[in-house]
Amino acid sequence: MPQPMRDEQPHHCFGCGATNPQGLHLHFTHATDPTTSAPIVRAEVHLTRLHEGPPGYIHGGIIATLLDEAMSKLNRPLETVAMTRHMAVDYLRPAPLHQPLVLVAVHLSREGRKLHHQAELQSPDGTILARAKGLFIALDPAVIAAALTPEQASH
Amino acid sequence: MPQPMRDEQPHHCFGCGATNPQGLHLHFTHATDPTTSAPIVRAEVHLTRLHEGPPGYIHGGIIATLLDEAMSKLNRPLETVAMTRHMAVDYLRPAPLHQPLVLVAVHLSREGRKLHHQAELQSPDGTILARAKGLFIALDPAVIAAALTPEQASH
Repeated sequence: MPQPMRDEQPHHCFGCGATNPQGLHLHFTHATDPTTSAPIVRAEVHLTRLHEGPPGYIHGGIIATLLDEAMSKLNRPLETVAMTRHMAVDYLRPAPLHQPLVLVAVHLSREGRKLHHQAELQSPDGTILARAKGLFIALDPAVIAAALTPEQASH
Repeated sequence: MPQPMRDEQPHHCFGCGATNPQGLHLHFTHATDPTTSAPIVRAEVHLTRLHEGPPGYIHGGIIATLLDEAMSKLNRPLETVAMTRHMAVDYLRPAPLHQPLVLVAVHLSREGRKLHHQAELQSPDGTILARAKGLFIALDPAVIAAALTPEQASH
């Protein structure tokens, strides 16, 4: 039985949930690195003062949210359900509100249940505003199945 | 001229801004570690599905936001305006929605303009759900003054 893709269902995920009235409603496209065959995800970001930190700039926590969400989206093409265990964020330049930005994440490596991902928030010209590295732990499929309700499992 | 306390003004900060209709509206209390005299901040957290990640739990990015916001609040008692440069988050246990949680941050050390802080999200019984260490860089007061509008500078 294929694992349900929770992160693609209409739900309340703050990052991507279609039914969350206050969510970021991120929409990711998937690709593959032509050299390494590693999965890549991208999303366009364009935020307002609803997510402000310093005046005129995105809140550092929201930047972390964007990077975490992008990295989490790499788990699906890797056919895993995984949770963030560790994330390290470098804030390189202030990330402006009211401008289109690019969110991109790539899978780096895997050791057993440990998945290493990287994500960047970039200006449209490719300038890196923030970068994160994340360690995700793949969940045991049996644990996932036990946690699902019958309704969820039928999706 | 005293530095304006931007983070205390009614503004749109996603973490603490009173005028942000979709913000977290965190309210911090300040204290001092009785042994080290280091500043400490605390806030109560009680989130709903508006900030959901995995079903029933707080989004990992929102957890990072809570921890970043708490650490940033240590800059005021240290009489600095500082920006997050690096943050490392350890996600130790899932952090539940619909339950009261405790957010606490403490200042660890300072080397010139580098401020080292730590924050934790805890259950009411003290169980640590997530922990972050943050490196903040104090801004040059001249740079802050140049960036302020006359209206902001008059506050």
